[in-house]
Amino acid sequence: MTTDSALLSRRRSHSPIAYSASPLDRADAVRGDPARLAAVMAGEGARLLRLDGLAPVFSDTGGLVWVPLSDMPGGPQGAELIFLGLDAQGHGHFAPVVADLAGSTAPAAADLRRLLDAMPAADLAIYGGARSLVDWHARHRFCARCGSATRLAKGGWQRSCVNEACGADHFPSVDPVTIMLVEHDGCLLLGRQPRFPAGRYSALAGFVEPGETMEEAVAREVFEEAGVRVRDVRYVASQPWPYPSSLMIACHALADDRAIAIDANELEDAQWFTRAQVAAALAGASDALFEVPPPSAVARHLLEWWMEQAVSV
Amino acid sequence: MTTDSALLSRRRSHSPIAYSASPLDRADAVRGDPARLAAVMAGEGARLLRLDGLAPVFSDTGGLVWVPLSDMPGGPQGAELIFLGLDAQGHGHFAPVVADLAGSTAPAAADLRRLLDAMPAADLAIYGGARSLVDWHARHRFCARCGSATRLAKGGWQRSCVNEACGADHFPSVDPVTIMLVEHDGCLLLGRQPRFPAGRYSALAGFVEPGETMEEAVAREVFEEAGVRVRDVRYVASQPWPYPSSLMIACHALADDRAIAIDANELEDAQWFTRAQVAAALAGASDALFEVPPPSAVARHLLEWWMEQAVSV
Repeated sequence: MTTDSALLSRRRSHSPIAYSASPLDRADAVRGDPARLAAVMAGEGARLLRLDGLAPVFSDTGGLVWVPLSDMPGGPQGAELIFLGLDAQGHGHFAPVVADLAGSTAPAAADLRRLLDAMPAADLAIYGGARSLVDWHARHRFCARCGSATRLAKGGWQRSCVNEACGADHFPSVDPVTIMLVEHDGCLLLGRQPRFPAGRYSALAGFVEPGETMEEAVAREVFEEAGVRVRDVRYVASQPWPYPSSLMIACHALADDRAIAIDANELEDAQWFTRAQVAAALAGASDALFEVPPPSAVARHLLEWWMEQAVSV
Repeated sequence: MTTDSALLSRRRSHSPIAYSASPLDRADAVRGDPARLAAVMAGEGARLLRLDGLAPVFSDTGGLVWVPLSDMPGGPQGAELIFLGLDAQGHGHFAPVVADLAGSTAPAAADLRRLLDAMPAADLAIYGGARSLVDWHARHRFCARCGSATRLAKGGWQRSCVNEACGADHFPSVDPVTIMLVEHDGCLLLGRQPRFPAGRYSALAGFVEPGETMEEAVAREVFEEAGVRVRDVRYVASQPWPYPSSLMIACHALADDRAIAIDANELEDAQWFTRAQVAAALAGASDALFEVPPPSAVARHLLEWWMEQAVSV
C-alpha cells in the first residue's frame, strides 16, 4: 500500500523539509548523567555555536560557526550551556544561554531570512533546534509557579526552580500548530495575513488548543478565519518551526462550498485558486495571481504535494 | 480513495476518541472582546463547572455538575474565570481558576479514573479541556520571563505579566506527544512502564522535542526506549490528553528486526506480540498474555485500529 507519507518521503529525499533532519544525535542519556555530560564537555572536539542574539553568526560559506568549547571566555564551567547532541565522531555540540537578547547586531529580519534560506540544510536543522532552546531559556529565567529564579538542568533540556519549597521543573515547550490546504472541487483556499509580503497567499494556520484533536483544530481554525466548514481532514507532513518553537502539522481537508467570511483580525483576504493558478504561482510565472511561501515553509511543501497528486484527492 | 483517517472516522462514529468532540463552541471571538464576554457572563444560562481541586464533582448520573454563574459566592465580577465556550443555546460555560489545588477531597487516582471512564463522552470532553486550563492557570501565576505576578486575560486563554516593563503574554500550552505501534512481520512491539498496573503493556510514547518532526520523534523515542530502529512512520489519529495538557499523536511504524534493548529508566519490559496475542488481550481472554490500556487511552484505539487492518500494513 502506498501511503501519503511514503509518497512524501520519496519526494523529501530530494528536498527535505527545512529545519528537519538534524545530523546530531540528541543522546538523551547524556543529558541526565552529570559525569557523561562533563566528559562530553571536556572532550577534544567539544564545540560551541556562535550566536548574535538569537541569530546565527554566518561563516564565509553561509553555514554555522563553531568555536572550541575550551576557548569559551571564562571556560565552560559554571556557564549555562545547552547540549545539542553528538556528531558522528562523538563530538559534543553546545549552544550558549543568552540572558540578554537586546544587544544583537544581527541582520534585519528580511536579510536574515534570506541568509537562513540559503544555509546548508544540516546547519539549518541544528540552528533551528538550538534557537528554540536558547529562546526558551531566555524567556524562562523565573518559575511560573512561584516566581523564584530558575537554573539550567539536564544539559539545558530542563530548568528547575531554585526555591526548595516549590522545586518545579520546567521543560522546553513545543507548540503544535495546524496548517492546512482546504480543497473544494479542485480549487484551494488560501489566505493572506496583513504582515505577509505583497502578493503572498498561503495555507491557513492556527495553534492547537487544550481539549481538541488536531482534526478539530483544523476545522475550528478554518471556520474562525474564513467561515468555511471542512471535513475529511488528512495529515500530510510535519515541520519543527523555530519561531519560537512550533510543531507545524500540515494537513489537507475538504470543503462542501466556497462561501468565504473572513475574520478581519486574522486575515486580510482569502480566495479560492484553481490548480492552474497554483501551478503558475509555484512556477513563479510572470502572470501568476499570487506569490507562494518560500521553500523553507511547510506551506510550500503542502502546495507542491498537492500538485503532485495525480487526481484530485 | 479510502484513507486511514476516513476508516478511522467511520469507526469513531461508534466509539469516539475519549476527551475529543466537545459539544461546546469555543467562540474565540468572545474571548478577546470584553463587552461580549461580559454579556455572556451576565446571560441567564451562564454556568460554572464544579470542581474539587482538579477533579470534577460527579452528578448522581456520573456527569458534570454546573451551578448558575450568578450563584457564585462573591459573584463572578473580579473572579478569575475561564470561558470554556457556548452550548447550542448560546449559554456560556465557565470554569473557576483554582489557586490552591492542595485542599481537594477528590477520590484517589484509581477511583477517579474509573469514574471518568464511565462519564458521558460529551462531559468528559468538556472536563478534559477545562482541566488542562485550570491546571495551567494554577502553574502560571507568575511570569516566567521576569518573575512578576500574572493576571488572567482573554477569558482565561491568556495570562499577562502585571509588570509594565515586561508585559509578556503567556498562553495555555499543549505538549505534542508521539505514541506508536511498531510492527515487524505481523507482530507488535509493546512495553510496560514501572508505574503501569500489573500485566499492562501499551504503545511506547514520548514528547516531541524542539527541532524535530513528529516522524523523527517517533524514531528517536523507539530507539531510546527499546533500541529498535523504525521507518515508514504513519500518522493514525490524535487525542487531547488532559494530564496535564498533551496532544497525543498516534502513529504506526515498521521495524526491520526484533532485537530489543530497553532503557531501564523508561521501561520495565518490552516484548513483541503476535496478532493472535493482541486479539486475545483486546478480548480480555482469560489466557491473554497481557492487559490492554483502558478505552479512554488512544493506545487502545491504536490497537483496535491495527486489528481492523485487513492485511498487515
